[in-house]
Formats: sequence, C-alpha cells, structure tokens
Amino acid sequence: MKKEDDTKNNDLMEKIVSLCKRRGFIFQGSEIYGGLAGTYDWGHFGVALKNNIKQNWWKKFVDSRRDMYGIDAALIMNPKVWEASGHVAGFFGTTPEGKKFNEMFKTEVGAGEEGTVSYLRPETAQGIFVNFKNTVDAFHPKLPFGMAQIGKAFRNEIAPRDFLFRQREFEQMEVEYFIRSKDWEKYFEYWREEILEWMGEIGLDMSKVHELEVPDADRAHYSKRTIDFEFDFPFGRKELFGLAYRTDFDLKNHNLDYLDEEKGEKIIPHVIEPSMGVDRAILALLLSVYEEDEKNGEVRSYLKFKPNIAPVICAVSPLLKNKPELVEYADTKVYAPLKAEFGRVAWDDNGNIGKRYRRQDEIGTPFCIVVDFNTLTDDTVTVRDRDTGDQERIKVEGLVNYIKEKI
Amino acid sequence: MKKEDDTKNNDLMEKIVSLCKRRGFIFQGSEIYGGLAGTYDWGHFGVALKNNIKQNWWKKFVDSRRDMYGIDAALIMNPKVWEASGHVAGFFGTTPEGKKFNEMFKTEVGAGEEGTVSYLRPETAQGIFVNFKNTVDAFHPKLPFGMAQIGKAFRNEIAPRDFLFRQREFEQMEVEYFIRSKDWEKYFEYWREEILEWMGEIGLDMSKVHELEVPDADRAHYSKRTIDFEFDFPFGRKELFGLAYRTDFDLKNHNLDYLDEEKGEKIIPHVIEPSMGVDRAILALLLSVYEEDEKNGEVRSYLKFKPNIAPVICAVSPLLKNKPELVEYADTKVYAPLKAEFGRVAWDDNGNIGKRYRRQDEIGTPFCIVVDFNTLTDDTVTVRDRDTGDQERIKVEGLVNYIKEKI
Repeated sequence: MKKEDDTKNNDLMEKIVSLCKRRGFIFQGSEIYGGLAGTYDWGHFGVALKNNIKQNWWKKFVDSRRDMYGIDAALIMNPKVWEASGHVAGFFGTTPEGKKFNEMFKTEVGAGEEGTVSYLRPETAQGIFVNFKNTVDAFHPKLPFGMAQIGKAFRNEIAPRDFLFRQREFEQMEVEYFIRSKDWEKYFEYWREEILEWMGEIGLDMSKVHELEVPDADRAHYSKRTIDFEFDFPFGRKELFGLAYRTDFDLKNHNLDYLDEEKGEKIIPHVIEPSMGVDRAILALLLSVYEEDEKNGEVRSYLKFKPNIAPVICAVSPLLKNKPELVEYADTKVYAPLKAEFGRVAWDDNGNIGKRYRRQDEIGTPFCIVVDFNTLTDDTVTVRDRDTGDQERIKVEGLVNYIKEKI
Repeated sequence: MKKEDDTKNNDLMEKIVSLCKRRGFIFQGSEIYGGLAGTYDWGHFGVALKNNIKQNWWKKFVDSRRDMYGIDAALIMNPKVWEASGHVAGFFGTTPEGKKFNEMFKTEVGAGEEGTVSYLRPETAQGIFVNFKNTVDAFHPKLPFGMAQIGKAFRNEIAPRDFLFRQREFEQMEVEYFIRSKDWEKYFEYWREEILEWMGEIGLDMSKVHELEVPDADRAHYSKRTIDFEFDFPFGRKELFGLAYRTDFDLKNHNLDYLDEEKGEKIIPHVIEPSMGVDRAILALLLSVYEEDEKNGEVRSYLKFKPNIAPVICAVSPLLKNKPELVEYADTKVYAPLKAEFGRVAWDDNGNIGKRYRRQDEIGTPFCIVVDFNTLTDDTVTVRDRDTGDQERIKVEGLVNYIKEKI
C-alpha cells in the first residue's frame, strides 16, 4: 500500500504545481533562464492569495489588538546583529561532501576599502529584537506586549525542494511576545490556541495538523519549550509553524532591558514566539482546498478557498461575447458595481460557459455570475456555486449584498 | 537669503527625522549596533503608513483595473537575467578614489562547487519582464495590458544620504505597460496623467511637483522619452517618480515575443513604464503634510495626512484614566466598535488631554475622541479635528458613521 500512497501523493504535488503555473499563481523563479533553485515568482492570482493571507494575519494579530506593535526591518542588517544572535558562529549546514558552511547569504555593503561583509537576514526575529528599544521608547508599552513583522528571510539551503516548502527565499509572519518570566506557561498556551485558531480561519484542513512537543534534546539551546505545528504534506508530516518559549536569550544577547514600572526596576522580559511561514501556509492551504469530483461524467478539479481568502471573489460573464447587449449589460450593470465594491472580481468571456466554469473552479472562485437573455427582460442573473455547482437566479440589484452575506 | 533658506530646510529635515523616530514611524536600520548606512527600519506607525500607501497604489493600479496583472518575483534571480538586461556590464558607480564598481549587491547561491554568483535585484522591472511569457500563457491578455509589482530593490550606493531619499535597500511600485509601438504617445500621456492623479490622491503638495522632460543626452540609451517627476525636497529639486518609454528594448533582450491575434503574427510589444518609489513617496508625503502653527501661545507640529492614508484614523481617550466609569465607557462603547470597524484606532490614556492632543497631532491622527463626565449622562463624546482644533459633541451611536463620512 505504501507504494500506492507515494504515487498518489506525488501525483497530488504535481497537480498542484501544474495548476499553480497554468492558472497564474506561482512560477519557477527566473524560469526563462532555466530557473534558480529554491526561488519562486508569484503570478497575478498568487499575489492576490498571498496578500489576502498576509492582510488577514496582520488584521488578526496587529490591527485588531491593543498590545501589538508592527515593525518592518531592513533585510540587510549590521553584521554585529548576527554575531550577537549566534548566527555567524553557529548557523551551519553540511554539504553532501561533508563540508560545513554557513547558510546565511553573504554580501558586501559599501564600496572599496570601506566595504563591510554583511548578510541577508536568515530570520525575521532579530529584526524585531534590535528594534525593541526604539519601540519601547516611542510607545511605552506595558508588559505583556508584542511586536509583529511580516517579511522575507533567506537561507542558502543545500537542497531546496518540495515546491514552496524548502526555499532559499521565503517570507515569515512572526510575533515576539514580551512577558514577565513567571507568566510564560500562561502565554505559551494562549499563543498555542491563537495559532490553531488562525489555521482554521484561513481554511487549513485541521485533520492534517498535528502538534509535536519538541523533546529536550532536539530543541534549540535557548528554548525551554517548543511546539512544532506539523502538517501532513504529501511528502511527509513536516513542520508548518512553530511556537517557542525563547526565555530572555535574545534580549540578553543584545544587551537590552526594560523598566518595569510595576516593580520600579529594570528587568529583561521573556519571549514567546509564534512563528508562521507565508509560503508554507499557502502550500498547506492549496493542499487543503484542492478537490476533485465528477460533474457530467467529467473529472473537474477545484480549489475550495473560503471567499475572504480566494484570489477572485466572483467572475462575471456575458453568456455570449458576440452579443453587444449582453456584454454591455454584464459590463455596466453587473461587473462594474461588483468590481467597485470588492476589487477582486474577474471578467471572463473566454470560451463557452462550461470552459469558464472549469477555469474559475481551478482558480477557486466561489461564485460565477452569468448574464443571459433572460437578464435583459427580468434583471436577474445566474449565480453558480463553485462547490456544489448549483445555480440560483438572483436580482441584479441585490447582487452586492448577496455576495457580501456570503463573505 | 540663500543661507537662511538652507538653514530652514535643514531644520525641516531634522524635524521630520526626529519626529519619525520619536513617534515610532522610522528608525535608523540596526541602530543599536551603530546603524547600517542606507537602511531604515519601520516602526508601528511607519508600517501602517507604508501599508496604506502600497495598498492604495495596488487598489488603483491593479485591483480596480481589468488590464493589469500583479506579479511578485523573487529578489534573488538567475544571474543571466542581469547579463541580458545589461546590468552586469553597465551598472557602475565610481568611488571618490575614482574606482569603478558595480552597484549590484553580489552573493553566492548554493554550496561548495555548485555555488553561483548572483545579485540582489537592483530594480523591480526585470522581475516583471522575465515573467512576461508565463503571464501571457496563463491569462492570454490582449494588448494593451500591464504587469504591476511592488517590491524591494537594492543598490550598493556609494554615498547613501538624505534620509529615505537615497537608500541601499528600498521599495518600488512599478508598472510595465505593454502596447503596440504605434500607440506609444497616447499611452505615455495616459500614464503621465495617472501618475499625477495618484500623487494628488495620496496628498502630495502638488505645488512642489515639477515635470522634467529628460533631454536626449541624459536619457538611458533604451528610452525614447522620459519624464522625471521632481519634488522640491529641502535638499533640492530631485527625482521623485519616473515615466519612461522603454521601446521593445527589454523584451528583445530576453528574446520574448507575443502573438498578436489581431494581426495573426508575432510581435514584440513596446513598453511604457511608470515607476514610483515607496520610500520617496513617503518622504515627499511627510514633507507635504508637516505643519506648524500656534495654539494657545504654544507652537504645535502636526501631520496633515488624509484620513485614508493616516496610520491612525482616530484615537479614543477617557478624560481621566483613574475613573473606572469613564475608562469602561470609553473602552466598551467607543473604542471597541470603532476598532472593529476601522482597525487603525488608537487607545490613548497617557498624560493629560493636552499632551494626548499634541501626541496625536504629531502622529497625524485626524480625530481625537474624548469620553468625559457628560458622556455618562447624555451619550455624547467630544470629537476634535486635528487641523482646526475645533471640537464637536457627537452622539456615540452615530460615531462610526460620522468617521466613515469623513473618510
């Protein structure tokens, strides 16, 4: 059975990669020049999906909270940051030939003799820690409070693989949550639940999510407790997100402290770190929402995105593109108001209706709206549901509200 | 007079830089390690401002259009891209010592003998061009159509200076608009107007914006026409945005073409490129909205952001923070519903009301809402207007709509 499972899983990855390219989600980086291993370029629908995921995360973890401060640090930092963090001394990989090498990308900043070797950041976390003092000085936050960042990080992986899973250039969404040391267990549990909740909110298949309590021997030396949130990828059960209690390791390394007004003394806050990858979130999401079924004797594939996450909320079609009265109605009375309201609305008049449905199913568009000859007499349109294929006739004047209620 | 102007201009830059740090907009990159020249880290309000600018741009130039395809390409690309584009051979700066050197940041991708020298992209444009084929294959767009990208670019500037103006790591918002060559004048003019319109929409002081028709001798060799949109910065009139007719130079370099269904033949589309910098847009905006006036015999400074661009739309304060009935009312009946509706809402109970107004003025918060003892009896609050300092009493139940109408 194992072999059959492997074949099925390989097939699934191939189908997802192929769909992502065909439908304009994700392309191999620098593809026309033979690619660059471990890099990907995001196409029109991929950017839309990624923006939805990132904005959803930012809204939940920053905008809707009072205790969170956003940050966006430069990707190239002073090399002393990486000396203090331990990355210069300890961030090593081993090639097949058994040679150890530092997985940070190195570059030289400044010209001529003033040039300084520096690194592309291998994690976003240090970009938060080095801005701890500036943030405290500007906002005077009370403990507990957090700092949040979404941004790129770079690792010179020896063997990038499994599509978005192990890349050389990737994007992280991280919180460093600063607490009094005595409270660590409470906030660790709090953030465990927040992470699980968010996974459900974006539409991950929670039956494929598992928590791994990382044993003492496998934890980073600075962490007193770590949970890996693993996902059943087709290539195995692997780390999706992480949650670590980093103690006061990082602030100590950077010689940072905090005036605790409650106690009237300087302390070094401790840190709980929920860490989520944009790319892995999207790969797990694609694997969660990919579905196949049979419609009219044909296999169709579709992406069952939640409407608030889908790159396109609805597509508008005139039944026939060579009938100006249908095109004009669809354009001015249906497409225009929906576009103005929701932005992520597609115009699709390419091929027959069956083909358009197949295309929008693969993009994961929840609703397809068709303007036909009845529309011209009764001002109703057909709204087709992606998942069931069911069609309803809806009054044009009520369309915006109809879609709003669905999302 | 010249010397006085210089002093005044230097003062203005210093004030802006100082305000940006003090209020948590923008910090020197890696500041606690002595900084890294030409890099900046964005604090809580800076990230909010930057996100507003970028999302506003994306909405106008991508989401609200039918002819635009988003892209988000990797920052590290196959070095062949930069050979084809001419950057490896020609992207040189000269140090004071007169030494020529390539301003692209170099790094090595892959381990050991397989390592390949590559570059951090010095512009976002090539990330669009190399995805031209994938985008055409996925979406079959008809000419004219555009591809748009927001993302970082890197230049190893010899002398980074003038705050956000000349950095080593910066962010661009670019469109490559693909057209038939015969139409270039029409679309050049079209994009000229689009750029000017957007500048006005985000709130730039248009009296400081000037168009420079770049003369033949100063244009890049591939461009047949270029306009620099210049801005009167305190350090001089300098380039803010650009608009270039790049002909078919780039697609030709990458051996790309397009099947023109109208003519039934392969052609190489021509390109109009509107190019805008996120960081320069924000510097020009800060300089446009910074104001000083006198209130009650004291000089106050404030940022006159438009409400849709301001990092904070409104701040909510209980008049006294040691009165639980005021705090609870402000929290549950005023702050909570506003926060749920707008996200970018601040809670401010630090210091007396005068101090809070000064702080919110400097952040550029258009509306300060105060819950006082009258609120407890008549369910009204004070809404103070940032620019005029005028105060109105507004019914709490109408607050969300009141703010909505203002933005």
